[in-house]
Amino acid sequence: MTARRVLVTGATGFIGRTALAPLGALGFEVHAVARAPRPDAAGGVRWHRADLLAGEGPGVIRDIAPTHLLHFAWYAEHGKFWNSPHNLDWLKATLDLLRAFADAGGTRFVGAGTCAEYDWSRSRYDEASTPLLPANLYGAAKASAWLTGSAFAREAGLSFAWGRIFHLFGPGEPVTRIVPALCRAHLEGGRLDCTEGTQLRDFLPVAAVGEAFARLCADDGQGAFNIGSGRGVTLRALSARIAELAGREGDVRFGALYDAGPERLVPEIERLRATGWRPPESLDAALRESLAAARG
Amino acid sequence: MTARRVLVTGATGFIGRTALAPLGALGFEVHAVARAPRPDAAGGVRWHRADLLAGEGPGVIRDIAPTHLLHFAWYAEHGKFWNSPHNLDWLKATLDLLRAFADAGGTRFVGAGTCAEYDWSRSRYDEASTPLLPANLYGAAKASAWLTGSAFAREAGLSFAWGRIFHLFGPGEPVTRIVPALCRAHLEGGRLDCTEGTQLRDFLPVAAVGEAFARLCADDGQGAFNIGSGRGVTLRALSARIAELAGREGDVRFGALYDAGPERLVPEIERLRATGWRPPESLDAALRESLAAARG
Repeated sequence: MTARRVLVTGATGFIGRTALAPLGALGFEVHAVARAPRPDAAGGVRWHRADLLAGEGPGVIRDIAPTHLLHFAWYAEHGKFWNSPHNLDWLKATLDLLRAFADAGGTRFVGAGTCAEYDWSRSRYDEASTPLLPANLYGAAKASAWLTGSAFAREAGLSFAWGRIFHLFGPGEPVTRIVPALCRAHLEGGRLDCTEGTQLRDFLPVAAVGEAFARLCADDGQGAFNIGSGRGVTLRALSARIAELAGREGDVRFGALYDAGPERLVPEIERLRATGWRPPESLDAALRESLAAARG
Repeated sequence: MTARRVLVTGATGFIGRTALAPLGALGFEVHAVARAPRPDAAGGVRWHRADLLAGEGPGVIRDIAPTHLLHFAWYAEHGKFWNSPHNLDWLKATLDLLRAFADAGGTRFVGAGTCAEYDWSRSRYDEASTPLLPANLYGAAKASAWLTGSAFAREAGLSFAWGRIFHLFGPGEPVTRIVPALCRAHLEGGRLDCTEGTQLRDFLPVAAVGEAFARLCADDGQGAFNIGSGRGVTLRALSARIAELAGREGDVRFGALYDAGPERLVPEIERLRATGWRPPESLDAALRESLAAARG
């Protein structure tokens, strides 16, 4: 077996940092690139400094000559990323990286997509049959990276996989996101205005998402892979479970906000399961971590 | 009414050059950009020299400050464009142009898409309901320009229309394309190996395509617009008509080649009709031109 050397972009990010240790455990020589490397983030990782938006990605790829490229880097500022023009910059940078990777003799590219690529008027999300119809610029740019990237890879003889991330939560996420906000409301008995809360979502602990991408790297399956547990939970049930684990209940007001989004956003995950990855049996352990973080 | 100034990219190309006179007739001040301008191509057009792939597009847009941008420029070398990595370059250049156009105060962008964006396993091609599932890199990059471009435009407050071109023929096309090849075979009594020839296609004279895009510019409808006559013809029927018009019959062998593609590639064109554009009543006049060109 030849040595497998993976380069991870966005390696200091919310998801990227959780993929490093699983990649090492799967036998990869792990390289990580970031504008501001954090060499303490995981042991055994070789860090490289580069600004992918400044066109420094292709040079790093030539220097490292990775066999695998796991590409997480994208604009992700909470509340702003959905419709920012930075999505255009990241689409371009992603295509540049992919092309440099092909030119440098890379063999497998794994990229991070999103459930926002899909037509949200469907209630079933299946990689092979659910049409893409992004409702925002982020979803559109990610769908574009998938469409153009995968077609380019086919021509270039590159193996190409694309993990479409659904909902997730975990350490380091902004406190205004739903799980940290629910944790704080319940712990502090505070008020939190929510949407109706009956919509079904698939919440996955971020560490499981990092695991899934590491598995995708080690696998040789091509195409799109939904990243989720395959199990839906309503926001109301999630909130109730957090209150149980917290031992206190906050003033969470369901129905106070509009725009809950689609009724059901839960992926089919047969393709991901085929890599050997399994979702956690329960969210409790991860929710306890979120509660601990909210306690500060 | 404020002055309407349109900048046409790819203005020396097969389609682009046919849009210039119709734009003038619709009252536009017409500017054209090309790497190698051909000021003789149409009267009353102001020509500008720029290489869009060298990043010169945004500067031209700032200089001209067009209210409308009609973007045809793309890699189109016959037989190569379907799967060339140049499609990535043109996707990037298109997004750069669009962004510069928004920054320069432009109001309406009209771009050239393709029927290859659609899922060809469908037999009906409707802008609102037919899923996109490009089968090649050209279709993928065009679909990406549509998805990301239209989502960006929505955020930037730009009006955005996208014309999906189906089949077309006309002056200046490579002689190896189907209509010139059929003309030559019939005129010269030569042999031409064809696919089964029973598949339905919508062939539109290129001048009608240029007209349609000019109408789209003058219109204010947004989103995707199929560009076609809405009428299907089999390759066998097209060949027979060319033979009739030529007054001679060549040795056209249907079924000699595989890979005829989808059975039916004929668009719904209600959206395009709403702009006031109408397809030609008959292909005969345009086929006579193709026969004349084949006579040399």
